[in-house]
Amino acid sequence: MAFCNSMVFKPSPVTPVTAVMLAEVYTEAGAPEGLFNVVQGGHETGSLLCHHPDVAKVSFTGSVPTGKKIMEMASKGVKPVTLELGGKSPLLIFEDSDLDNAVKGALMANFLSQGQVCSNGTRVFVQRDILPEFVEEVVKRTRAIDIGDPLKESTRMGALVSRPHLEKVLSFVEQAKKEGATVLCGGEPFVPSDPKLRDGYYMTPCVLGDCTDEMTCVKEEIFGPVMSVLSFETEDEVLHRANDTTMGLAAGVFTRDVRRAHRVVEHLKAGSCFINNYNITPVEVPFGGFKMSGIGRENGQVTIEHYSQLKTVFVEMGDVDSLF
Amino acid sequence: MAFCNSMVFKPSPVTPVTAVMLAEVYTEAGAPEGLFNVVQGGHETGSLLCHHPDVAKVSFTGSVPTGKKIMEMASKGVKPVTLELGGKSPLLIFEDSDLDNAVKGALMANFLSQGQVCSNGTRVFVQRDILPEFVEEVVKRTRAIDIGDPLKESTRMGALVSRPHLEKVLSFVEQAKKEGATVLCGGEPFVPSDPKLRDGYYMTPCVLGDCTDEMTCVKEEIFGPVMSVLSFETEDEVLHRANDTTMGLAAGVFTRDVRRAHRVVEHLKAGSCFINNYNITPVEVPFGGFKMSGIGRENGQVTIEHYSQLKTVFVEMGDVDSLF
Amino acid sequence: MAFCNSMVFKPSPVTPVTAVMLAEVYTEAGAPEGLFNVVQGGHETGSLLCHHPDVAKVSFTGSVPTGKKIMEMASKGVKPVTLELGGKSPLLIFEDSDLDNAVKGALMANFLSQGQVCSNGTRVFVQRDILPEFVEEVVKRTRAIDIGDPLKESTRMGALVSRPHLEKVLSFVEQAKKEGATVLCGGEPFVPSDPKLRDGYYMTPCVLGDCTDEMTCVKEEIFGPVMSVLSFETEDEVLHRANDTTMGLAAGVFTRDVRRAHRVVEHLKAGSCFINNYNITPVEVPFGGFKMSGIGRENGQVTIEHYSQLKTVFVEMGDVDSLF
Amino acid sequence: MAFCNSMVFKPSPVTPVTAVMLAEVYTEAGAPEGLFNVVQGGHETGSLLCHHPDVAKVSFTGSVPTGKKIMEMASKGVKPVTLELGGKSPLLIFEDSDLDNAVKGALMANFLSQGQVCSNGTRVFVQRDILPEFVEEVVKRTRAIDIGDPLKESTRMGALVSRPHLEKVLSFVEQAKKEGATVLCGGEPFVPSDPKLRDGYYMTPCVLGDCTDEMTCVKEEIFGPVMSVLSFETEDEVLHRANDTTMGLAAGVFTRDVRRAHRVVEHLKAGSCFINNYNITPVEVPFGGFKMSGIGRENGQVTIEHYSQLKTVFVEMGDVDSLF
Repeated sequence: MAFCNSMVFKPSPVTPVTAVMLAEVYTEAGAPEGLFNVVQGGHETGSLLCHHPDVAKVSFTGSVPTGKKIMEMASKGVKPVTLELGGKSPLLIFEDSDLDNAVKGALMANFLSQGQVCSNGTRVFVQRDILPEFVEEVVKRTRAIDIGDPLKESTRMGALVSRPHLEKVLSFVEQAKKEGATVLCGGEPFVPSDPKLRDGYYMTPCVLGDCTDEMTCVKEEIFGPVMSVLSFETEDEVLHRANDTTMGLAAGVFTRDVRRAHRVVEHLKAGSCFINNYNITPVEVPFGGFKMSGIGRENGQVTIEHYSQLKTVFVEMGDVDSLF
Repeated sequence: MAFCNSMVFKPSPVTPVTAVMLAEVYTEAGAPEGLFNVVQGGHETGSLLCHHPDVAKVSFTGSVPTGKKIMEMASKGVKPVTLELGGKSPLLIFEDSDLDNAVKGALMANFLSQGQVCSNGTRVFVQRDILPEFVEEVVKRTRAIDIGDPLKESTRMGALVSRPHLEKVLSFVEQAKKEGATVLCGGEPFVPSDPKLRDGYYMTPCVLGDCTDEMTCVKEEIFGPVMSVLSFETEDEVLHRANDTTMGLAAGVFTRDVRRAHRVVEHLKAGSCFINNYNITPVEVPFGGFKMSGIGRENGQVTIEHYSQLKTVFVEMGDVDSLF
Repeated sequence: MAFCNSMVFKPSPVTPVTAVMLAEVYTEAGAPEGLFNVVQGGHETGSLLCHHPDVAKVSFTGSVPTGKKIMEMASKGVKPVTLELGGKSPLLIFEDSDLDNAVKGALMANFLSQGQVCSNGTRVFVQRDILPEFVEEVVKRTRAIDIGDPLKESTRMGALVSRPHLEKVLSFVEQAKKEGATVLCGGEPFVPSDPKLRDGYYMTPCVLGDCTDEMTCVKEEIFGPVMSVLSFETEDEVLHRANDTTMGLAAGVFTRDVRRAHRVVEHLKAGSCFINNYNITPVEVPFGGFKMSGIGRENGQVTIEHYSQLKTVFVEMGDVDSLF
Repeated sequence: MAFCNSMVFKPSPVTPVTAVMLAEVYTEAGAPEGLFNVVQGGHETGSLLCHHPDVAKVSFTGSVPTGKKIMEMASKGVKPVTLELGGKSPLLIFEDSDLDNAVKGALMANFLSQGQVCSNGTRVFVQRDILPEFVEEVVKRTRAIDIGDPLKESTRMGALVSRPHLEKVLSFVEQAKKEGATVLCGGEPFVPSDPKLRDGYYMTPCVLGDCTDEMTCVKEEIFGPVMSVLSFETEDEVLHRANDTTMGLAAGVFTRDVRRAHRVVEHLKAGSCFINNYNITPVEVPFGGFKMSGIGRENGQVTIEHYSQLKTVFVEMGDVDSLF
């Protein structure tokens, strides 16, 4: 995030504290004044960065519409841009997969951080023959998720980031019902028994069955604990449907078959692909999206290029060979 | 320019033929149909590219205002952009330089291709003590430039690209005079003796003396054969003035002193720096600008990254380690 | 093989012609005199190279003992060395593999170029349950191999490189029988019906069954069309046996299981690993061995480092900061 | 020096303590047991390493004859080798250099660590016109070097590493005298006034004048505080003489002229070149020699390749395409 650059960081207005705490950590660690700067306000993560004339490049993480606005603003200053804009990533579960792993993978792909993860695999395509078995198991485990205080060891799911966001996520569930999806579990507001958590923005994690490709829950990024389960029959079919999106941040495949695993990954149009796991992002592996999911990569050595500039120097060792 | 990508190329409307000839060369060489496509029309180089939904990235060479528009259009499709937007590059000539080389370098930096070169070093800063000598020699050589048919061996300068562009360049000379610059030579329309060249958009190459940093000819890209000569006294001063621009495509320094050469280059904010020569751009050396002069690089291995996408694949060799 | 270097090439004394033909091709293509030089004689590929004071680095392909001698000679001139010394590579066929592919893979791993390929997978470990089926099929196909004139389209196997080498290969078969292996097919001298091939050094391709790890045919490089089939029970066991060698050029694994495929490859100590195929060496993929199979890599970008030298230049831009 | 490798380190028998202290530092820092191992004994740095069957590569720093022996021993195990074998590096001082800097550079190039530095620039070529001036200044400063306890702030030179080594260095001075060189200062045993230093292996730093290319002091590595000064007239001449050695570890040039500086460096056959300074070796810059000065590089990213092995994995996504 810093390669001999100073940084102006504008966190989301609903997550203002962690950026300040990070700044405190840097200060305590001896970072020079002016290296890491936090600006508060605005409507979304990073949205103020490119107004600043001293900002050399703009790096934004957030929604596609705001990402477009950021890039448009950056165009006024001809500033290079990296964008990480989320997705609607597919998770393909073939009938030959280890079902237990596949179920765990689908949970990891949907419910980490209350589903507020940009790379989540929210379109869970399950091959028809194992669909009943998969659904039974995934619902059983989703119901067992312990909701509550995230500081407690046993808790597996906390509150969403704000009331408006909770309401937006719940409205996606309502919309899904109207469009014909079946709520297999969850999707309701939740009030923990602990009195001090009463005003938290909790909901029960939701699995939606009977989903089809045209439903809003399958097309739009919900950014909450809502998994959409879809059925498929052939590899060709599911690849076509998985790629039929303007996004391409991540994608996953569960199969035991080595040839299918790599063949499917070769055809998935996504920046981060997972075989038999999901949401594993080691710091040395580049992370970022294809298509509208973004521009550039984070993590890994390749990121250095986004935070440095190349200056080439030609040194003449003889005389100028002039035309004039 | 192509790394397993097909390409849609829209040349400038005033240079429509060469792109078509290039396409013919590719076809003759056996390039598959659809690999290299030429589209004509529009107002400037590359301006149509990003309307096309299948274009994966946008690469533009031209003026800053159009570059900004291109980037703004690209923002609608979240398409990665490389821009090469020209400059107003400085050329620093210190009193300890080899004067003959420095004069030749200044000519190379200003009159190649009738001055229609984006990296031209049009702000020629000359250290005060050698200014009279430098001016005398540069004017003498500029006057000797043979203007005419570019297909003739002896010709050193041809016609500008269009009548409107010729008029624009000449108006820059007029404006310079109004603002106090002295026309040391050239800057006039020129009619070659050969009858078949009578309607060509010719002008005599121009050297402007007594220039100051605020003049239009020193601030704006002319893209024609017009050199502005400025005087300076100290290294610190000239570095400050050289960098006092929103552009940063190229820069040059003439000096015999090895320490000064590298010290000056270290401080010049430009993508391509030349020591004791100018406009030397071997194909293996990355080329592109700092600041508003552009985004990304052309030539060299590093360019591959602008024309390829990184897909990372994580292969799980064990079981999913799930939180749920 | 050449990175701005001239080259002295000494082919094996039993393959003297192709090197000369290659030199003729280079000459015809316009290579400057002295760039590619062929020296004949000696006992083995490359063995003379390092006596020559002008040879900057030594690159040798051949047997381990000669490789050691080459490296010892190179030590006298402190010359960098790359060695590609062959192997005794394992091919692991698990019971869950596609048997037809596995059989084809075993044939590709053993009989290409009459078995005279350094990366061949001559130790074929087959999981016990599929051993009978595998052996039946591999023998059937081996018997069907068409031996004869290599210039004929239908021919699949030609003659060995010399009479002494043919005799050496046949003696390995005799030795195998003495040590308890079963000749399942082939291993005999062969006289083609075409009279003009009568004096060729032909033999029938051989499959040896009932092999154990201690047999000479399993321990030593035969460099002929002789496949040794071994049986195994568990993954751990076969990995241990596969790696129990001083060599490490290549290794292969046949399995349908994606987790096993990558897990096995992770543990195989070999420079070139193949999953569900064998002897596939695209020019962009580095090739070379672990352990005694060699030093350095051929093919791919990484090879450039073996044929170039790094010179670092420090330019002082200030004064010397001296202790004295 | 460690890239996920464990290491067996055999220090020189005359510098046994620092390696053990380093091991203690690693242990205190939490390095796992077996990561860094120290073996004592033998005759020279690194000489035992390659007998050990578990050592995967051999890295040696020391003299050329021992380097050759090390490489010969490594050949028995076909182990990759990096060698850093010292040199007889040239330092070229042109008449247009900043004389004060050049003198300081010559001192840095010869007297650091009592001259016991492999990259030292011990052949000091001075252009004829500035020779008297240079010699006067270099001798004046050499005489002023404070010899004594290296733990005292003011000390600039300590004792040599052992009595035999001191005697060897002094004998080089004697030999130089016999061959016609003039001792301009130093070259004598030295007894510090501090009684506890009485038995130290001290000598006065020595400048030898009137040297010629054939003298032993100019041809052989002394590894002590002995500078040989030679005179030259032209750039071509000095480049030829500077490169006329079997070694090529380092080289330096002092000149104010930017074109000469880079032109000379281009022609110097040495791994580490310095312009207007000497013995500056930042950790991010690769260090190592041409010709008999060594194989491989230390420092910088490129070193990773010497301490890692490349394993390429081919994954077949279709069927085996067999010839058989």
